[in-house]
Amino acid sequence: MIKSFHPPLRTLMGPGPSDVHPRVLAAMARPTIGHLDPAFIGMMDEIKQLLQYALRTENALTLPVSAPGSAGMEACFVNLVEPGDKVIVCQNGVFGGRMKENVERFGGVALMVEDPWGEAVSVDKVRALLEQHDNIKALAFVHAETSTGVQSNAKALCALARDYGCLSIVDAVTSLAGIELEVDAWGVDALYSGTQKCLSAPPGISPVTFSERALEAVRNRKTRSPSWFLDKNLVMGYWGGGQKRAYHHTAPVNALYGLHESLVMLQEEGIEASWQRHMHHHTALRSGLEAMGLEMAVAADVRLPQLNSVMIPDGVDDAALRGRLLSDYSLEIGAGLGALAGKVWRIGLMGSSCSRRHVMLCLDALENALVEQGADVTAGRAAAAAAACYAESVA
Amino acid sequence: MIKSFHPPLRTLMGPGPSDVHPRVLAAMARPTIGHLDPAFIGMMDEIKQLLQYALRTENALTLPVSAPGSAGMEACFVNLVEPGDKVIVCQNGVFGGRMKENVERFGGVALMVEDPWGEAVSVDKVRALLEQHDNIKALAFVHAETSTGVQSNAKALCALARDYGCLSIVDAVTSLAGIELEVDAWGVDALYSGTQKCLSAPPGISPVTFSERALEAVRNRKTRSPSWFLDKNLVMGYWGGGQKRAYHHTAPVNALYGLHESLVMLQEEGIEASWQRHMHHHTALRSGLEAMGLEMAVAADVRLPQLNSVMIPDGVDDAALRGRLLSDYSLEIGAGLGALAGKVWRIGLMGSSCSRRHVMLCLDALENALVEQGADVTAGRAAAAAAACYAESVA
Repeated sequence: MIKSFHPPLRTLMGPGPSDVHPRVLAAMARPTIGHLDPAFIGMMDEIKQLLQYALRTENALTLPVSAPGSAGMEACFVNLVEPGDKVIVCQNGVFGGRMKENVERFGGVALMVEDPWGEAVSVDKVRALLEQHDNIKALAFVHAETSTGVQSNAKALCALARDYGCLSIVDAVTSLAGIELEVDAWGVDALYSGTQKCLSAPPGISPVTFSERALEAVRNRKTRSPSWFLDKNLVMGYWGGGQKRAYHHTAPVNALYGLHESLVMLQEEGIEASWQRHMHHHTALRSGLEAMGLEMAVAADVRLPQLNSVMIPDGVDDAALRGRLLSDYSLEIGAGLGALAGKVWRIGLMGSSCSRRHVMLCLDALENALVEQGADVTAGRAAAAAAACYAESVA
Repeated sequence: MIKSFHPPLRTLMGPGPSDVHPRVLAAMARPTIGHLDPAFIGMMDEIKQLLQYALRTENALTLPVSAPGSAGMEACFVNLVEPGDKVIVCQNGVFGGRMKENVERFGGVALMVEDPWGEAVSVDKVRALLEQHDNIKALAFVHAETSTGVQSNAKALCALARDYGCLSIVDAVTSLAGIELEVDAWGVDALYSGTQKCLSAPPGISPVTFSERALEAVRNRKTRSPSWFLDKNLVMGYWGGGQKRAYHHTAPVNALYGLHESLVMLQEEGIEASWQRHMHHHTALRSGLEAMGLEMAVAADVRLPQLNSVMIPDGVDDAALRGRLLSDYSLEIGAGLGALAGKVWRIGLMGSSCSRRHVMLCLDALENALVEQGADVTAGRAAAAAAACYAESVA
């Protein structure tokens, strides 16, 4: 007989999920109601408003897809890409590669702009490709690459897309609420995000937003979207405000309770304050990491505050060290992915996991684990540096 | 400022979601851990085993899709149907129509077998169509039609599919844990279900299972599946036992805690006992409904115990009555859908909502609401009939 599952109490400082606040956990345990209940419909409207606030947009199509971020990505591509469409896909990490897969599965042609893992998307290379080709349908890129800890210049890339008359498709899974993100001001056309990063809700839901231009493209499709579940025309009938809602699918009621609560908390803090908090604790974490002689993997000007890639020092056993953090401190940090596997750790400071408590715990645990492995590190130096950094920011 | 959402406390006796047990709600509020945490991987293995138990199968590909039942449906069709494939689709309610949409979106040809809403799929018509055509790829049907309350003969239909060398694709969203369902013994090839019906977990997850024959068809595809998120070859890498797990998407951690707990509860009760419980309370509900002069919409031999379609008596205001149940009793029952809109109510007795308490509450509320509308109903008769029925079953 299999028994009830009781998870260990972790501190989550990897690439996501991040720590979920007890208020959000409690919200998910509230009694389930029907997905067509008037009270639930009211909550759906509030979620839409809160997402518009978080994304800085007035887009009417702003809603949470009832599935994880990968389905949010697919929702953007399956609705906007038709067979034969040319899409510029920028790849500088894992998730650009996944965008390419999406474009090709829906019959599109992916024109690749490749940059090294750990560097930002080159705006110049994108411009050059836009100059070379006619009839580009869309430009797709990752705002915050979770696999490397790099941010690309979303504002400049979206402006380029507008200049050349194509749509922009933006992966904002890790950027939302962690760094500046301005859907309307930047002219983003289609965007998907995730709940388990800087929103600190549990994984499983993907906020998306489509501009009027993007919707126009969906309405003018020559072929039907090959997905029923993710067809925006159908989903809009369910989430669309005002008119009678058409039954589409049964919404994940309790997961949406959780998302609602996390967005209420974001609104209480303020979206700009949330961006600042991420930068604030990142600064302290970086001071501590550098004080113990570790090197950041990403250049300062394109570094994400919420996802810190750190070079693993020579001679350190990556897996053993992360195992130690998990067993002795119940602390999860992320391994490197793809080209960076075994070369970096990814330390997340996202949402509820972005606090002074998290920074100090991580520095202490990491320093001790390095000392145990015989690395050239002096115990206590990291904490001192971070504390000094915090003191300075107050002064 | 938008405030925290506190749902009303409902009694859910519609077509789903059903009442979620406090044990399941509590499980979802447990601390989130990483989706690659060893403890989480262990829980995934347990969910797989528990689903195999519930579905009576040893299929290696048995797992919960990280999205609602509609995505589970799409997962079956997008993996098994290739452009040009002929698929027999049986339609006797809403969900057969959705299967047709799926087949056509993936480039297949849907050969329809239509039966009236409220009747079972005709095995004879299916056999006749199989005789007429060569190279049928699959036979798709709904085991328990949630829109009408009818069950079709899944055992006979799957046997037919085997006889004619095609795959069976079965919608078991409402049947799982409510009526007999034998994946291996009946030779089901692909099946999807939902969590928010007789499993009484919150909506948002879709258990699916594929037989070895179905997997063979997936492996031998000539074209790539047009979905990345639902590609079984990729999902298997993530959920497959034994070998190293490949990162595919971030699993909905807390929703899976809930599903795990609901499956543990099912295992404690026993799957056959669960089937019997649904029939037991259905019998009492039906006695009560008939005692107040209401007529069941579906013939006894194909009636689902877990979803009771009841004819709305002449002169009764459907919407007003359901509104009254919601406002005065906080009780949700289902409206009719499509061809049955305004003609029937759908009363669910699913999972945690299938108990004597639910039967008695529903009969009392419905009887009183009918009396208020001036219907020819004598107060108290329904409860007396149901109580007598329960007493008889003990004797």
